[in-house]
Amino acid sequence: MRLRRLTVVGVGLLGGSVARAARTRSLAREIVAVGRSGPGLAQARAAGVIDVATEDLAAGVSEADFVVLCAPVGALPGLIGAAWPHLAPGAVLTDVGSVKVETVRAADACPAREGVAFVGAHPMAGSERSGFAASDADLFEGRLVLLTPSARSSHHAVARVSAFWERLGGHVRLIGAEAHDQAVAVVSHLPHLAAYALAGAANGEALGLAGRGFCDMTRIAASAEGLWTDIFRSNRQPVLEAVAQYREILGRWEALIREGRWDVLEADLARAREVREKLP
Amino acid sequence: MRLRRLTVVGVGLLGGSVARAARTRSLAREIVAVGRSGPGLAQARAAGVIDVATEDLAAGVSEADFVVLCAPVGALPGLIGAAWPHLAPGAVLTDVGSVKVETVRAADACPAREGVAFVGAHPMAGSERSGFAASDADLFEGRLVLLTPSARSSHHAVARVSAFWERLGGHVRLIGAEAHDQAVAVVSHLPHLAAYALAGAANGEALGLAGRGFCDMTRIAASAEGLWTDIFRSNRQPVLEAVAQYREILGRWEALIREGRWDVLEADLARAREVREKLP
Repeated sequence: MRLRRLTVVGVGLLGGSVARAARTRSLAREIVAVGRSGPGLAQARAAGVIDVATEDLAAGVSEADFVVLCAPVGALPGLIGAAWPHLAPGAVLTDVGSVKVETVRAADACPAREGVAFVGAHPMAGSERSGFAASDADLFEGRLVLLTPSARSSHHAVARVSAFWERLGGHVRLIGAEAHDQAVAVVSHLPHLAAYALAGAANGEALGLAGRGFCDMTRIAASAEGLWTDIFRSNRQPVLEAVAQYREILGRWEALIREGRWDVLEADLARAREVREKLP
Repeated sequence: MRLRRLTVVGVGLLGGSVARAARTRSLAREIVAVGRSGPGLAQARAAGVIDVATEDLAAGVSEADFVVLCAPVGALPGLIGAAWPHLAPGAVLTDVGSVKVETVRAADACPAREGVAFVGAHPMAGSERSGFAASDADLFEGRLVLLTPSARSSHHAVARVSAFWERLGGHVRLIGAEAHDQAVAVVSHLPHLAAYALAGAANGEALGLAGRGFCDMTRIAASAEGLWTDIFRSNRQPVLEAVAQYREILGRWEALIREGRWDVLEADLARAREVREKLP
């Protein structure tokens, strides 16, 4: 796979990393970045990571054969609608959003255009850091990249998007958008909310005794709250279900501790440990 | 500081690490381990980490000038009472328990004996691993070690216990037993319960999508549930308060998500992020 022109929309952590990874791996002859005025575009040009910087979405995407939207999830539906009429025949549009149903729906609502396709993608390679300064050419190396093709996605487009992420080092897996959003609510969105809540529960004095376990568990609470509020909004129902289930488990254990039912608590914790032991 | 005879009671992760650290740093001429029959004692002898192994507590402690109880918190009050009458004049008794009020009370309830002292200690150097096989001579290196002297602890005994943990690489800090138990409920015990609950909330399908964030946040859910049930029991009231506060924060955020009050949620998350950013 060798692209003529790759366009990334947004040059924050993810957009910057896509551009860096593509440059390092010579994946595109030319790399264009679309962004708002701000330090990101200038930094990306200065670093030699992109060839062309523009604030004009239509101009930035119109001659690209591959476009990656790297904006916060709340902005993706609007960007898809705005970019769609300007895509060149044969172009493939993808994204890096952590929530997929809303985005896939926005793409499916666009008028059909011969040879133009959207395939949603979610590289599971976040970080609590953000901005171009945090970008990394190897961010996707060895990471899972979930693709959520819809009924409208052609096999050809899915194959191209798969090949793209594999060239960037990712391990691609296909999953339905609804199943994706429910699963990430549990393994990503809930843990972020839980981490923020742990940090929120620690007052000044207790914080002075925080050890490695607490630091590890709350690291993702250093994530930009605007991005995460946006994710919770976009994936509202699955997140609500995951939080309710989590609070229910904690409520059950709180009652077991209050009632001194230690054997039952220990058996519950053993089941949770067995789940954890399936992971690295 | 150079001990004549150091006795560790228990040779699991912590007891094994105390013995290894003391041996490596030539902190004692002789190291004795008291344990139940099982692989730990034999492994510790085979590794050259201890000189004498015994299942007899009284015999194991009676000629020691420094004794470290490295048993689960639930066993500590009983061990203190059992060891106390056999301690040699001038001996100092300490422990490694994660909960301190119960243990300090048990020591204070022992009849006063001239030149015999207990000073509670909590090296904040746990791991989800357990047993002698997981022990490490550098486990305490750079770690916070909290001492919880009571009104009965002499300055001399506190100084000796401080010197001991500093020789093992720890950074010693003094704190009252009640303040300790309340703080660790928030920064250690609650996070463990939260990690077990996150693992418990992840069903089979979601688990397949677990990324680094989820693995980091649930790592401590691989901890031995028996030890942790024991800790929750020993520190029941502070743990109940911490869990209740945590569930309240999560409940507030669940309501904000349900009601779509994104600005308020984002402001709450920002405050939690600011707390987290004070930590490494």
